[in-house]
Formats: sequence, structure tokens, C-alpha cells
Amino acid sequence: MIKNKKVNAAILIIGNEILSGRTQDTNTSTIALWLNSIGVKVQEVRVIPDVEDIIIDTVNHLKKVNDYVFTTGGIGPTHDDITAESISKAFNLNYKIHKGAFKILEAYYKPGEFNEGRQKMVWMPENANLILNPTSGAPGFNVENVFCLPGVPSILKSMLGGITNSIVGGEPILSHTISIRTVESEIAQSLTDVQNNNKDIEIGSYPFFQAGKLGVSIIIRSEDQSKINKCTKEILNFIDKKKIEVVIR
Amino acid sequence: MIKNKKVNAAILIIGNEILSGRTQDTNTSTIALWLNSIGVKVQEVRVIPDVEDIIIDTVNHLKKVNDYVFTTGGIGPTHDDITAESISKAFNLNYKIHKGAFKILEAYYKPGEFNEGRQKMVWMPENANLILNPTSGAPGFNVENVFCLPGVPSILKSMLGGITNSIVGGEPILSHTISIRTVESEIAQSLTDVQNNNKDIEIGSYPFFQAGKLGVSIIIRSEDQSKINKCTKEILNFIDKKKIEVVIR
Repeated sequence: MIKNKKVNAAILIIGNEILSGRTQDTNTSTIALWLNSIGVKVQEVRVIPDVEDIIIDTVNHLKKVNDYVFTTGGIGPTHDDITAESISKAFNLNYKIHKGAFKILEAYYKPGEFNEGRQKMVWMPENANLILNPTSGAPGFNVENVFCLPGVPSILKSMLGGITNSIVGGEPILSHTISIRTVESEIAQSLTDVQNNNKDIEIGSYPFFQAGKLGVSIIIRSEDQSKINKCTKEILNFIDKKKIEVVIR
Repeated sequence: MIKNKKVNAAILIIGNEILSGRTQDTNTSTIALWLNSIGVKVQEVRVIPDVEDIIIDTVNHLKKVNDYVFTTGGIGPTHDDITAESISKAFNLNYKIHKGAFKILEAYYKPGEFNEGRQKMVWMPENANLILNPTSGAPGFNVENVFCLPGVPSILKSMLGGITNSIVGGEPILSHTISIRTVESEIAQSLTDVQNNNKDIEIGSYPFFQAGKLGVSIIIRSEDQSKINKCTKEILNFIDKKKIEVVIR
């Protein structure tokens, strides 16, 4: 396994309900945090509607320019669940009953309950690898570097552990947060100096408003803990000089 | 004003903190609901990092294929706030001090507080239109069909009202929700029949798990209330026949 190489991923959220604003996506954050922990950086997220051509074009683009692609949504039993068929077309694979998935759901449901609606969920790209679902039975699937997960957040969460070993990441992306009581403009110049001094580190500055008080969180991210430590020291140095109150150091 | 024409928008979320999973985006939902109410449909959302080339390329693509583009994030005073400069480059406009924005912030801050860090926030694409900020002073801006808003959700929310009149939408997108106690597979076939019978209506099916009970929300969306009513009637018809408990009809 090659470590230290940068490994990138894209997340593709498929679903009209996110675009309409009715549903708040939370899967991006779940997947991104899990990927960080195994050394994969999310480079891009897209949200697209349940439209076959758009799914096909977007998957074909993202799988080319990223090491991994994770899709969410559109793998349930209803007419608006078209992800599996669209992915089949993107890869030029037959869309057919997956015998392994059929066996899992046949065993999961009581006799007679594995009806036509539910059987739609075992139609997949030919020879896809299954992603097991410990919550509600119906598996997701994986073809090459594309992993297709459901949209329901609690189910998606329960399935990530099962694919951790399928992902070859780089060094885990580490971070440190410094939280201070000030406004961004007070530290902007000093923070720019530290960033210029540490060009290979990602330093982000995020204002917050909590319990009636203004503050700024500074997030330092890198694969290298010693670089994070050096950067943290330089930042705390100017913060102490400016006599800014530190909440988390 | 031409009504009934479909008007599309893209939302572009600029920020490493969303891609890292640390921050949960909520601006998509805020902007999408507001746009729906003025007859604009969100066709695509992208989340990208604070990287100049990526911002320029993405904005140039999205502004071509959508009627409107709304960006969030990256217009504050710190080194990682590069949206205004990137948008200037995307439009081949000079990036310079906006006199109107300067006056606003000079009046907003106490004498002596309008420091160098804060002055960064008045650098914008030449001749940009300002988007007023009733919460924290620093304006957003608009160039052609691109509207640049801040990332902090409460500030963003307070600024949308000020640009409603700048957006020419189509008919507002209406929706009706039916909420029932069942699982998706029980209604999948009947719902497909209704969808086939009403091809120009968007019907979405969304499972939920609330207070220990499983259910499905069916969302019917269209610009035409009479079509929504017809569709709702057909759906309630099969639900009543199946003797499924209705929570919201």
C-alpha cells in the first residue's frame, strides 16, 4: 500500500429532495469525516436531480477525475429510484438481478413479504460487488471506483464500516482547531503571514456566533502532525501577543 | 416578464470546511426554498475547495448553463477568502476597491475600527452591484447572473430579501406532501402507475423513521395547482383502497 500519496474522492448526492430544499443533506459530512479518517480527501461534492442522463454524465466525469466516487440516494424500490440502472448504463453493464442480493433479501423478509416492489432493489449492474446493509437488508453496490449508498442517513452510516477495507487511502488527514474570542479582521494579516510561512498546510478561518459571543475557529489541516504543531505554535504566538482570549488552544 | 418559462439556478458552495465534513452546509436548503418561492428551480449544487482555478472554471461553466448562479462563502477578511478575486478573474474584470462598499463599511464601524483586514471586504469585481447586508455590514455582490453571498447562514439568510427583486423567476413551484404509515415497497407499483399517468409532474417518495414508526412522504411538485390536485386525488385513491393509515393527506 502506497502511503503519503494524495487520494481524492467525490461525493455525488442524487435526489430532487435536496435540490428543492425540502431535505437537508447530512450524508456529505458523514462520508467526508469517515474518508478523512482513512486518508481520503473529498475534492468535490455535487447534488443532481433524479434524471438518468445527468446521472450518467456526472458519474462518468467524476469517476475519471477522482480516485473514488461515492453516490447517495436513488437505490430504493420506487419509480424515482434510478441510480442502479443509470450506473449500469454509465459502465455499459447489463442491469439485471443480482443473485447474491436476491438471496440476502429473500432471507431478510418473512415468507411472502419479498414482493415485486422490494425485488426492484436487487437489480444492479452485472457483477457489482455488494455493500452490506446491517440496518434494513437491501445492499448497496460497488463497480470499479464507484460506491453506491442509500440516501437515508442512518442506513448509510451503518454501511460505511463494511467498505473501509475496500478503500486504499493515503495518510489520514489530521487537524487541529484553535478557538478564540475575536473577529476575523483582527487576525487576518497575522494569519496570512503564518499561511505564507507554511504553504503546504491548509489553514481555514471560520467565524462563529455562540451563546451571544463572537469568535473565530482556526482549523489547521495536514497529513503531518509535526507541521500542524509548528503552525499551531506560530498562531498561538501571535494570539498571545495580541492578548486575545483563547477558548480552545 | 415572461411567466411559465422554466428558470434554473445552480448553487456553488465554496469552502474547505464543508468538504472536510467539519461544517454541515445549511445554505443550500435556505437558498433553494427561497428560490422555489420565486419560481426558480435549483438544477445543481456543487461544493468546491478554496482554490482559485477551480472557482474560476466552475463559475464560468455554471453561469453559462444556468439562468442564475448563487455562490456562498469566501468573501470575508482572511487569507482563505478568495471568492471576490476569483470571480473578478472569471469575468475578466479588475479586482479593486468598491467605493459604495467602502462608504458602507466606513459608516458601519466606529472611527479607527475600519482596519486593513476589514478593508479587504470592499475589494470586488469592478462595477459589481452590491448586495446589502443588514446583519454585519459587509455587502455581497452581483455580476451579471452570478450572486455572491457569505457563508455564515444567519447573515446569508438576512441578505436574500434584498435581491428578490433582481431575480426574474417563472411560476412559483408548488408542492403537496402526503405522509403515510407504510413502507415504500407497498406503494411502489401504484405510485409508478400514477407517475406514468402524470408525466409532467414530479413525484418523489421518501421513507422516514420518526418516533419509532416507519413512514413514507410522497411529495408532488409542479407549477400547476390543478395538476397537483389531480395527482393527489389519484394517490389518495390507491392509499385508501390499500387501507394504509394517512398521517397528512
